[in-house]
Amino acid sequence: MNLPRIAVDAMGGDVGVRVMVEGAALARRRHDRFKFLLVGDEPQIRAALENHPNLKAASEVLHAPDTISGEDKPSQALRRAKTTSMGMAVDAVKRGEAGAAVSAGNTGALMAISKLALRTLPGIDRPALAALLPTLGDNDLIMLDLGANTECDARNLVQFAIMGAAYSRIVTGLESPRVKLLNIGTEDNKGTDDLKLAATELKAAADKLAMSFEGFTEADKICRGDVDVAVTDGFSGNIALKAVEGTARFVADLLRRSFASSLRSKIGFLISRPATELLKHHLDPNNHNGAVFLGLNGVVVKSHGSANAVGVANAVAVAARLLEEDLTQRIHADLARVGADGLLRSARNGSKKREGNPE
Amino acid sequence: MNLPRIAVDAMGGDVGVRVMVEGAALARRRHDRFKFLLVGDEPQIRAALENHPNLKAASEVLHAPDTISGEDKPSQALRRAKTTSMGMAVDAVKRGEAGAAVSAGNTGALMAISKLALRTLPGIDRPALAALLPTLGDNDLIMLDLGANTECDARNLVQFAIMGAAYSRIVTGLESPRVKLLNIGTEDNKGTDDLKLAATELKAAADKLAMSFEGFTEADKICRGDVDVAVTDGFSGNIALKAVEGTARFVADLLRRSFASSLRSKIGFLISRPATELLKHHLDPNNHNGAVFLGLNGVVVKSHGSANAVGVANAVAVAARLLEEDLTQRIHADLARVGADGLLRSARNGSKKREGNPE
Repeated sequence: MNLPRIAVDAMGGDVGVRVMVEGAALARRRHDRFKFLLVGDEPQIRAALENHPNLKAASEVLHAPDTISGEDKPSQALRRAKTTSMGMAVDAVKRGEAGAAVSAGNTGALMAISKLALRTLPGIDRPALAALLPTLGDNDLIMLDLGANTECDARNLVQFAIMGAAYSRIVTGLESPRVKLLNIGTEDNKGTDDLKLAATELKAAADKLAMSFEGFTEADKICRGDVDVAVTDGFSGNIALKAVEGTARFVADLLRRSFASSLRSKIGFLISRPATELLKHHLDPNNHNGAVFLGLNGVVVKSHGSANAVGVANAVAVAARLLEEDLTQRIHADLARVGADGLLRSARNGSKKREGNPE
Repeated sequence: MNLPRIAVDAMGGDVGVRVMVEGAALARRRHDRFKFLLVGDEPQIRAALENHPNLKAASEVLHAPDTISGEDKPSQALRRAKTTSMGMAVDAVKRGEAGAAVSAGNTGALMAISKLALRTLPGIDRPALAALLPTLGDNDLIMLDLGANTECDARNLVQFAIMGAAYSRIVTGLESPRVKLLNIGTEDNKGTDDLKLAATELKAAADKLAMSFEGFTEADKICRGDVDVAVTDGFSGNIALKAVEGTARFVADLLRRSFASSLRSKIGFLISRPATELLKHHLDPNNHNGAVFLGLNGVVVKSHGSANAVGVANAVAVAARLLEEDLTQRIHADLARVGADGLLRSARNGSKKREGNPE
């Protein structure tokens, strides 16, 4: 199988070229059949490549004179798409010179550039940002949308469910992932009209969908391992994801303080370091890095701006895996099978929809 | 000062009378100037009181023939308000026979019954459910709304900010608590129109408000101790609160697994038990139990259904403290000072508002 290349925006992220190139090099070791297109300031990229001959041998460098900053509004980013590393990396996917683009830059800008350049798949109104979260179960959880769409209607939520299930089947290998809608209660009468309508639509189409739709879930239940795909609007999803991240950090800080609270505890900490290291590994966001914009004609992966080389490598590995498993084609096929439009005949037409651009 | 009584719905909660009465007895030891009205099945209450002479001496028992279940819809609960322990406890506040009501029952039912019986304060469109969260700073954080109002407009959010600040001043002793709106980013262009409008209104009124309004915060920042009041709509607030609770439990479970992963870790755990106990204490929701419905003519406190006696005692202590500090009058005064209606002249009129009834 002749695999498409992976375009890497080498300039995005808090650290920049060094970490992006080192991360790509780490990913190349795991997915050594892939070739790379490194987009950004050519001299900096070439300098960084000197430390990574294995990546250098598998990479082409595409010079981009400009970069998108964290402060750039999506509208500003769109105007500079043709000259920025982010814009040129996504454009390489559009032109078929790469199958996937990976960037650690401004999420709102990446969303806007990707949507304009790649367009959404037939039957998809807007792309959704999906990430993997650790659970107490055997598989990671996929949650979407995480902020690409501030407000969503029932039609969007159903489309997110279909796309999330396709992604989950690739990640978990399950034939029929368990899908739930994030809500403030599990009873049918809970939540907004759009949530209730989406639940009705998904129940009705259950037999046609390659998923097991299990109604509503609350935010304190998603990490228990009894749901594979948690579907929500971008506002609530962003709030939930950040609450999870913040609390994990909060508890880790409390733990550090507690262990430092007495000599006895310090000794206990040293002895039990393997345990606390294991916990740290579980909670380190770098080990779950790589959010995907689902629903586009092409794979676009967002790496966290503060990710280290290991985190970047995981984001690039997500792109590699989704190319190997042909995510785009699978979502395409799922949509065709369920006939997303027929499925959603009764859904409202998204008058409420508005795009957000979270960090 | 002649303190009003505290009415306790003795039947609410997963365990029921025994825990509610034991919790009230624990609270009575801390706030020994208070008298209690215990509402529910009289024989059961009298039996439970035999173990708590100190509470028995300070309590009157009001027999209620019926109870609200966790499954009852708010509409059903309202019809049975006159005969249920929850309804009669709130009614005692309405009739001036108690200053506060505490219930561990169905949140949606308690909200509906309280709103109908006690009405909202002048200038308040709807009550908000507010809870205390632990932070890494010196003070607990107050977050509202936590699910009383599924959708909120700018006018609601501004009212929540004013009420939350009044509550925070009582809890923290700060003259001007730091108030932020929960959003998916901190830039002015982030989030919904209602959030942007609420931020504009609060900025404009800053000088009149007994708070320091500091714009937007993201959900991963609220527990760091740099915000005293986090204001959000009931849907996002409920999602955020449950994500925090669920993640804290998730990390605690991971920790337990890690410590059990090797003999060495088990030994380390035993040695460092004081540290892990300290952590457990910090994370135990019972130590932060007692959410308050702000904006009513009277104090209504919701105890978590699964709270133990210590948790119930904390919820009752919240009611006692809010009576001692006269929360209702302070919110009243704040609203008068800022002239909530003038402040909100330009805000939309809540066309989107709908009530939710989360667990």
